[in-house]
Amino acid sequence: MTADNSVQVSVLGLGAMGSALATALVEAGHPTTVWNRSPGRADALVALGANAVATARDAVRDSQVVIACLFDDASVHEVLDPLTDELAGRVLINVTTTTPAQSRKAAVWAADAGIAYLDGGIMAVPHMIGQPGSSILYSGSAEVFHEYQPLLDLWGTSTYFGEDAGLASLYDLALLSGMYVMFAGFLHGAAMVAPAGITAREFASAAAPWLTAMTGGFHGFAEVVDGGDYTVPGQQSLEFSDLGNILAASADQGISTEMVAAVQRLIQRQIDAGRGKEGFARIIESIKQPV
Amino acid sequence: MTADNSVQVSVLGLGAMGSALATALVEAGHPTTVWNRSPGRADALVALGANAVATARDAVRDSQVVIACLFDDASVHEVLDPLTDELAGRVLINVTTTTPAQSRKAAVWAADAGIAYLDGGIMAVPHMIGQPGSSILYSGSAEVFHEYQPLLDLWGTSTYFGEDAGLASLYDLALLSGMYVMFAGFLHGAAMVAPAGITAREFASAAAPWLTAMTGGFHGFAEVVDGGDYTVPGQQSLEFSDLGNILAASADQGISTEMVAAVQRLIQRQIDAGRGKEGFARIIESIKQPV
Repeated sequence: MTADNSVQVSVLGLGAMGSALATALVEAGHPTTVWNRSPGRADALVALGANAVATARDAVRDSQVVIACLFDDASVHEVLDPLTDELAGRVLINVTTTTPAQSRKAAVWAADAGIAYLDGGIMAVPHMIGQPGSSILYSGSAEVFHEYQPLLDLWGTSTYFGEDAGLASLYDLALLSGMYVMFAGFLHGAAMVAPAGITAREFASAAAPWLTAMTGGFHGFAEVVDGGDYTVPGQQSLEFSDLGNILAASADQGISTEMVAAVQRLIQRQIDAGRGKEGFARIIESIKQPV
Repeated sequence: MTADNSVQVSVLGLGAMGSALATALVEAGHPTTVWNRSPGRADALVALGANAVATARDAVRDSQVVIACLFDDASVHEVLDPLTDELAGRVLINVTTTTPAQSRKAAVWAADAGIAYLDGGIMAVPHMIGQPGSSILYSGSAEVFHEYQPLLDLWGTSTYFGEDAGLASLYDLALLSGMYVMFAGFLHGAAMVAPAGITAREFASAAAPWLTAMTGGFHGFAEVVDGGDYTVPGQQSLEFSDLGNILAASADQGISTEMVAAVQRLIQRQIDAGRGKEGFARIIESIKQPV
């Protein structure tokens, strides 16, 4: 494990997230080289002590450890494919948001080029980096993860999922899907009460503790899902979970029913399959079998 | 305020929720009469000291305060419409899950019949009744709410929203919509990681704290929504919130994309309207304007 802060690091990509990652490295004392496609993004980092270079090749040449935090998978290949010769023998930690398939493809590309590859998924917004609550998921080279974990821990809690480079992205996107869907559900509720003169702030102050309390139900759903028996007693049935009242009230308020209707369809497919007396968690079977 | 426990109460409907409400009353020492359409549901309550009667009319006749916790709005009318003569001059607290329009209609019906009417929405599952975290929303007669609040507080935290009898139902259904949509988002995430051998329990142990942390974002969204200016700095843009990666990864895992696609459509409509650089909270405008 490299617990010292003498490791030279290069960061490619200085969007809000890349800048936050580089700032944490500079502040911890790591000699840090930074590069961004469009100029001017490095100024604040240079003021903190980072070394800004003009080309991605220069940045790679500077450091044993290269962090890629680019716009998307296409940008990763555009920037790094021409640099495989320079990257060979170095460590590439790719925290760009990608699909699991893209992460696995990048891992194969890296292996072919002799690059030690670790893929990361960042479960935080930029201002959370280095703060409590920031969590970063990794998969790919176990060797890279374990050697550089002290460096990775500068950004947040580091969790390693395994050698399959796609696992971190998969977990990342699964957690993000839960987040975006929850946000849409919150905003649906805020839209429902708005015509009654209830502000979004007032609704948020009720919805945040309510939904927090309701995350307490996840473990019970998970036990049923893992057990595979949706008839175990003590569950709210699918029939009882009919969302007709919510759909009617949303329509009465003149707002879109589409988020709630999507859940209702998952419920209805199980009821139609004769499973209405089974537990709500069974909607995962509707999700697992696309129509 | 009636803070004593000598108030005689009747509970109509002994499903899981009605039984929990009646149990809390009996345990607090209230003389409690119970009735259920199908027999046999009252046995446990009778063992605790409740008085079970054979007809809803007998139950209403017994008490100044009548609690209705029936299956749905149709059941409320089926049971109570023939009893308006008996209910006249009494207090009816209807905690049956109904739409705001149904609650308002019940309030008009009650006013016409000389019944003091309070509508309630229960934000708890039956085993939470009387426990910390149980919250019950009320609207309708302020007089009834204030006189009987000590009794209502036996079930959980009581919040009164105003004389419009539909407000409690509206708030109730808005919070429930957030909950059901969040549950579906969680189960979508669990379905995404399942093919990689990750159990739902393992996913739940990551998703519960993650989504709890992300409820911290509600207030920021709400401030933007209430302010009405989705261009204020510091927000994640709609363009950056593209869910293409999550949709692709879900499809790669062979699962339904419908929950995530529903959110993506809300985002896309705003991007199509030229609002892509504005903040994510703007999807509420997609919800407010059904297509």
